[in-house]
Amino acid sequence: MDISRSSGRWAVVVASGGLDSCVAATLAAREYRLAMLHARYGQRTSERELRAFHDISSDLKADRRLVIHLDYFSSIGGSSLTDDRMTIPVDGVKENIIPLTYVPFRNANLFAAATAWAEVIGAEKIYVGINQIDSSGYPDCTQEFLDAFNRLVRCGTRPDTQVQIVAPLISLSKQGIVRLGLDIGAPMDKSWSCYQRSDRACGICDSCRLRLDGFRANNAIDPIPYA
Amino acid sequence: MDISRSSGRWAVVVASGGLDSCVAATLAAREYRLAMLHARYGQRTSERELRAFHDISSDLKADRRLVIHLDYFSSIGGSSLTDDRMTIPVDGVKENIIPLTYVPFRNANLFAAATAWAEVIGAEKIYVGINQIDSSGYPDCTQEFLDAFNRLVRCGTRPDTQVQIVAPLISLSKQGIVRLGLDIGAPMDKSWSCYQRSDRACGICDSCRLRLDGFRANNAIDPIPYA
Repeated sequence: MDISRSSGRWAVVVASGGLDSCVAATLAAREYRLAMLHARYGQRTSERELRAFHDISSDLKADRRLVIHLDYFSSIGGSSLTDDRMTIPVDGVKENIIPLTYVPFRNANLFAAATAWAEVIGAEKIYVGINQIDSSGYPDCTQEFLDAFNRLVRCGTRPDTQVQIVAPLISLSKQGIVRLGLDIGAPMDKSWSCYQRSDRACGICDSCRLRLDGFRANNAIDPIPYA
Repeated sequence: MDISRSSGRWAVVVASGGLDSCVAATLAAREYRLAMLHARYGQRTSERELRAFHDISSDLKADRRLVIHLDYFSSIGGSSLTDDRMTIPVDGVKENIIPLTYVPFRNANLFAAATAWAEVIGAEKIYVGINQIDSSGYPDCTQEFLDAFNRLVRCGTRPDTQVQIVAPLISLSKQGIVRLGLDIGAPMDKSWSCYQRSDRACGICDSCRLRLDGFRANNAIDPIPYA
């Protein structure tokens, strides 16, 4: 009854359109047919991120794309990414403090949707771009979280479902991610990371800072436009 | 910054509008202010379930309601509940076979949304109506799944978030659930369980059968209309 199943080995890629998921998707594309998943959840730069998602998917010749709407994050609030009454922090990532940009339990929601899709199409892997080191301190970007999610997948899906979530960038720094992206020819020029702007990246939000530092540390130029 | 937080002890209740979540919500209402969560995911009887959700919420004087749309389950397919090309089984629940009505990883998606809401409003508990015994054999209705999800919540939310998912019906039979519902005055007349029809319950789908058997075993009359 798996009406959507088809030939080939598949990986679902959870792709925001940002730098990390761009590199993760490029890794996945070396082994699997790609089923690219993007979630809109009321984030401020959602149109720009969606464009980046499609540009990256086209560049990597993805066979399938699914854009889902998690509108309830706007209703729920609690994050400066989805709530216009809150400001985007620009004062750098601090140790042991969870930033205002944290969207409550977001990755669990994304990964759960990805697992549902993976189960139906019979995907072997779900690639995600999370990384623990330069991840702004989000609790749902850790190895512990990933392990807990994989346990949940094993016991909460059909017995014959064999899908695993993999996070190949989990222990890389932003410098290491950019290095890897350069090495494997990831279409980083198509990616978008800025939390604030959609025309040119602001260059000052935490996400821009981490990205710019990653390119600088590789003596490379970030190919996207900055204000 | 928890802009939605307010006084009182809160529980989020994941409520389909069915019998089990009706009883679970009634239990929650004895201790907590209620934040009722309902998900629409393209199921055939979604309008009727939504009405049941609102009727139950009104009866229990819930302070908050949130209806979310998980439209992607229709796109993903793979279940007879969300795919009109598949038929609803009426031949009884079988041992060790996962029925066609299984919606892939649905409860993980629901519980993840509930956890996000709970984290923002500062709820102590998330009540869910899952039960392992008469649950049609769904893998995401087990104690093991629940334990795995609670581990995920502990490591994937803010350190100061203390929310726990509780499933007070997990080890009850349908007979036991109806007994409990009668004892605590759960508004079971407002609930809806049928997978197929919205005017009168069909009485023959697996969900109707389990429910009818539960009332019969208590020598009680199911108060909803049957065809």
